[in-house]
Amino acid sequence: MVTILQAAAALRAKQLSSVELTDEALARIARLNPKLNAFITVLDDEARARARKADAEIVAGVDLGPLHGVPIAVKDVFATKGHRTTAGSKLFFNNITDYDAAAVEKLRKAGAVIVGKTNMHELAFGITSNNPHFGAVRNPWDTERIPGGSSGGSASAVAAHLVFMAIGSDTGGSVRIPAAFCGTVGIKPTFGRISRYGVLPLDFSLDHVGIFARSVRDTAVLLNLLAGYDARDDSSSRQPVKRYVPGPEAKIRGLRIGWPDDLNGQRIDGEIHVAIDRAARMAENLGAVVVPVQVPDHIALNAAHRVILHSEVSALMKPFLSQRDKFSSALLALLQQGLLLSATDYVDAQRFRRVAMQEFAKVFQKVDCLIGPTTAIPAPKIDQTDVSFEGETEDVRLAATRLARPANLLGLPAISVPCGFTQQGLPIGLQITGRPFEETLIFQVSAALEDASNYSGRVPAIASAPDPEKASNNRRTR
Amino acid sequence: MVTILQAAAALRAKQLSSVELTDEALARIARLNPKLNAFITVLDDEARARARKADAEIVAGVDLGPLHGVPIAVKDVFATKGHRTTAGSKLFFNNITDYDAAAVEKLRKAGAVIVGKTNMHELAFGITSNNPHFGAVRNPWDTERIPGGSSGGSASAVAAHLVFMAIGSDTGGSVRIPAAFCGTVGIKPTFGRISRYGVLPLDFSLDHVGIFARSVRDTAVLLNLLAGYDARDDSSSRQPVKRYVPGPEAKIRGLRIGWPDDLNGQRIDGEIHVAIDRAARMAENLGAVVVPVQVPDHIALNAAHRVILHSEVSALMKPFLSQRDKFSSALLALLQQGLLLSATDYVDAQRFRRVAMQEFAKVFQKVDCLIGPTTAIPAPKIDQTDVSFEGETEDVRLAATRLARPANLLGLPAISVPCGFTQQGLPIGLQITGRPFEETLIFQVSAALEDASNYSGRVPAIASAPDPEKASNNRRTR
Repeated sequence: MVTILQAAAALRAKQLSSVELTDEALARIARLNPKLNAFITVLDDEARARARKADAEIVAGVDLGPLHGVPIAVKDVFATKGHRTTAGSKLFFNNITDYDAAAVEKLRKAGAVIVGKTNMHELAFGITSNNPHFGAVRNPWDTERIPGGSSGGSASAVAAHLVFMAIGSDTGGSVRIPAAFCGTVGIKPTFGRISRYGVLPLDFSLDHVGIFARSVRDTAVLLNLLAGYDARDDSSSRQPVKRYVPGPEAKIRGLRIGWPDDLNGQRIDGEIHVAIDRAARMAENLGAVVVPVQVPDHIALNAAHRVILHSEVSALMKPFLSQRDKFSSALLALLQQGLLLSATDYVDAQRFRRVAMQEFAKVFQKVDCLIGPTTAIPAPKIDQTDVSFEGETEDVRLAATRLARPANLLGLPAISVPCGFTQQGLPIGLQITGRPFEETLIFQVSAALEDASNYSGRVPAIASAPDPEKASNNRRTR
Repeated sequence: MVTILQAAAALRAKQLSSVELTDEALARIARLNPKLNAFITVLDDEARARARKADAEIVAGVDLGPLHGVPIAVKDVFATKGHRTTAGSKLFFNNITDYDAAAVEKLRKAGAVIVGKTNMHELAFGITSNNPHFGAVRNPWDTERIPGGSSGGSASAVAAHLVFMAIGSDTGGSVRIPAAFCGTVGIKPTFGRISRYGVLPLDFSLDHVGIFARSVRDTAVLLNLLAGYDARDDSSSRQPVKRYVPGPEAKIRGLRIGWPDDLNGQRIDGEIHVAIDRAARMAENLGAVVVPVQVPDHIALNAAHRVILHSEVSALMKPFLSQRDKFSSALLALLQQGLLLSATDYVDAQRFRRVAMQEFAKVFQKVDCLIGPTTAIPAPKIDQTDVSFEGETEDVRLAATRLARPANLLGLPAISVPCGFTQQGLPIGLQITGRPFEETLIFQVSAALEDASNYSGRVPAIASAPDPEKASNNRRTR
């Protein structure tokens, strides 16, 4: 069972029950979480109770949609009523809210079974998910490697088939980077598309709620559910939601796909380059037109993103900085650096941001979407600080984030979809970026490529070993 | 002849010609500008040519609307094709553009006769209009006093009956303060309502285009003309324009007018307080309900405005700061201080701004508009730095701006309408602030008060002395 749509069909056909699915998820978590460290909190009892209720509802003919009775996970940055929400930080060790985040509310209403809260980078401010307080999250394809971050636990849990989907947050690639490193689908929709109410903020002008799943169609089903205006989030958009209704065949004939010339100037791992080229050729074989386009300089886009990110995070965290022992020394240093930025630097970055948005709007008059790699490197090792390629050394964090940050700066929807594996067996992510509020188009393109290549939903070795608990469950079902 | 609507009627009735009106305006400028210094550039020839064309058009039955053939003025911050636009700064001494600002374009299309470009505070960054490069603008009610600023020349020219209307820009009160000090009507509409294309920017998140005229109905006619979306200004709003069609009687029965309790805590000149109280009672007599309301703290609103203003202006001017001799020493010091602000201060101010907007939205659920004084003091003397009242001393610039700045921070529409005179004969301005894009309501309220009190359009002594040129013109007409 790989996708939510498959699980939903099986639940409706009474081929299995939500209790079985949930028990299986909890058993896999019990078996694999000690190796992956993907969860901070597992909600066994609550999940089982919700699953029993879902089964009763389904028997009674209630149908809450495809998530009804399906086990899922939530990044530990989303408020969940009655449970703690840590943001991976000591500051919020005992932060128990009496309300749900908007996205959690919607998932619950859709009948999803929340089995736990996922581990993450400290305060979501980084991409290794090597958490000093809750331990490093591991990549299920190679547990010596990072899953990416900041939503590393959500990606790891979905990739290891612990849950069918998870939500995360993305401020500079924090959904797409772990999706690429772990071989899941991951989307960061347009700024304002999913409510951020109840999400512990990192950076108000860059934070987005995002989704991890094991297929493009699952991701689309989830975005349909989570998108929409929410008065409780003042950045929430009133733009009507375009629903992507995934058909059996996604056609892209005649679509114009932009290939940013800028990619040619960026250092990108050779195997990744090959995979992306292959995806582009595949799109052409499916009838799309791949068009080279000029886009604003990625160095300037990254610089503007960094100035805005650091300024806004430091402003937000300033009141907490006197509690030095609540931060890792690395994070404290980052936050203190942010205090040194000048207002005019920040204003200049915001001005550049507006100009860049206009420039990208022009690009999107010529093409329907842009493609490229999600990351310039595959998942690095835990504690690896630098990466060398083409004879030069680069900070791992920069190599991982520089292709992902622009979509946050610009508020554009971007999806990462698996498009291959390195020879070492590490997943490679293809990033497709679209026009504001045109998520349907990037779903269409990524679904077509997924259908033609089938890299999504593969099972890493760690998760494919037989599971006694699952075997017994299956026996009981038959 | 006081208002545009009167002039338009007379032109249509062929009781006078645009050439006569324009000659009269130019003659008054020739006579009074040496005393008022309201103009940096007078466009005699171009104005006369346009007036002749207007007369020919009117004879031919062309009707471009109420501004057709009417002499007006433009603050020297609006680009005017083929003429210099200085922004009152040495930096732009020879800045001749080959295009018109959007507002100028619209005025021209409406057949207005632009007689000149008005003097202003250096770079629009201040409220005295005591310009170090072009000389101090004088208040026509007392030429020893400032007209307010930064659009001081526009206010002075309209108040002294040199032109029927003028446009200005308002970043922290730069239209409403001079309107109050000079006894004209002045409006700063909602942020994004009038295009800023072609306006030399001071501060992109606070700058608004505004209008000076001698009656509320004139002001409304002009806003109808100037409002609307413009793709060339990325802050321009697509909100549909509500047109205010001024009837002979403005009714306010049943309207709820908010009286900010915050005013009670502010130091306000006694005579101004009396005038505002009188206006409030007048509104009640006309059937409106005056309701005390709690509004966010004005000190915080002013602090946030100041941080944003100084950060954005300094970012904008940073590239010019090496040209030290192009700035007055006072302005240079202000701009250098702005460089010292931190990014986190700026971010905090923007966060507060969003919260304050939400707070004001709640206030506007209870009332239709807010009233209060435009300024805490009447026009001070040129070179006066402090003002003393209630036993304390305050910087003139703060006393003049603190009631006006919040509407810029919040983007709310606000009008200043004459509501009395001090015993020394200085005008007093009543400020009416409305909901976003609800200019029609503040026009309705201010028109009702104007009708009931008739403080608008009065002629200062300096302008009421007989003008030989005008007399001869009138003879010719009869």
